[in-house]
Amino acid sequence: MHLTKVRVVRNALDANDTIARENREDFDREGVTVVNLMSSPGAGKTTLLERALHDLGGVRPGVLEGDVRGCLDADRIAELHIPVAQIETGEGFGGECHLDANMVRSALPSVPLEEIDLLVIENVGNLVCPAEFHVGEDYRVMITSVTEGEDKPLKYPLMFRACDLVIVNKIDLLPHLELDLDKLLDNVEAVHPGVERLLVSARTGEGMDEVRDWLVRAATRERVPA
Amino acid sequence: MHLTKVRVVRNALDANDTIARENREDFDREGVTVVNLMSSPGAGKTTLLERALHDLGGVRPGVLEGDVRGCLDADRIAELHIPVAQIETGEGFGGECHLDANMVRSALPSVPLEEIDLLVIENVGNLVCPAEFHVGEDYRVMITSVTEGEDKPLKYPLMFRACDLVIVNKIDLLPHLELDLDKLLDNVEAVHPGVERLLVSARTGEGMDEVRDWLVRAATRERVPA
Repeated sequence: MHLTKVRVVRNALDANDTIARENREDFDREGVTVVNLMSSPGAGKTTLLERALHDLGGVRPGVLEGDVRGCLDADRIAELHIPVAQIETGEGFGGECHLDANMVRSALPSVPLEEIDLLVIENVGNLVCPAEFHVGEDYRVMITSVTEGEDKPLKYPLMFRACDLVIVNKIDLLPHLELDLDKLLDNVEAVHPGVERLLVSARTGEGMDEVRDWLVRAATRERVPA
Repeated sequence: MHLTKVRVVRNALDANDTIARENREDFDREGVTVVNLMSSPGAGKTTLLERALHDLGGVRPGVLEGDVRGCLDADRIAELHIPVAQIETGEGFGGECHLDANMVRSALPSVPLEEIDLLVIENVGNLVCPAEFHVGEDYRVMITSVTEGEDKPLKYPLMFRACDLVIVNKIDLLPHLELDLDKLLDNVEAVHPGVERLLVSARTGEGMDEVRDWLVRAATRERVPA
């Protein structure tokens, strides 16, 4: 029973990776760098994007929003007057807890790849499954909020290991929390040694210049074909 | 493809419900009330339990901890000198993002049901999948932290609809946030009209008497057999 389950999951991941490669080829053809942005619900993905996706030195951004239900985040991003498309994962069943390559593929006709240089895919808020499904991205970025506690890297190691950048958000709240920031950073280092980290407050703007610099570097870096 | 997938999921849920009923029969036989506690990662489930699971007026509590990796939470609960067992969902694949009835069933030999009246099952931190899997519980309780924003009920409606009690945690941070608490409560009401709500700070203890009262009432209420 256990073996069967693992085999089914493995097949599903293989099928996902095939579609992810097709997505990646489309992105490469159009010269679009793709960032898969992941976090817990409410860690500040959308607020971070509202703050980050302007003044990118000529890099033209676009956003693909993933949510179980609704288009609240897409509406917020649309205010920035940049291309945004929405994937709603909540059809049928109780809603998928992550984006997969096929969901992204089905949304691509709504994304004007020829008009953008950087596509940020905002995943469903979840620290487990999004890390298991490649969608054709060049980079994976995760946000951990200081309100979530020091222990999250140890409890959700795959997510912290799967990403190229860890953004520690809501640092404006540090004076009001008992969080040990050094311990959080030590835990990040323990599960993903050497991973790049940025400390920010998307609300106050602290550290957001560094996030924009990172995005510009990602979008203009020599790209490795899929 | 889509139909096949839905059928597989449906079968999986049917199989889960069968095992959940077996769990429930075991709980009923021992007179144990079971609460399935769910939230995002870092919303404060363990801290709430540390605060709540004492002075329960003769009700003897126990805890079953679910985590992708590690036993940090179980270690914290063990400090309370009450029975605690750990389910680690991270075997094989990247880790299950929820508890299901079979995982709970496999842990039951480690739970001294005859020594407790109330079993709290702390689910994996996730606002999507845990709501889809009954584990044999009498009640479902979810925690939403004020740091997660007002929009979570609209974005994760199944979770808010599936529960018998919504605990709004971290209210001590309200002065430091831009959160509109009325709007959050309106959104809860919109997706689950009439659901009971408690506003608390597990950190300062505000509102925790009401949580303990709720748990005592749940554990001593006339029980409806499965």
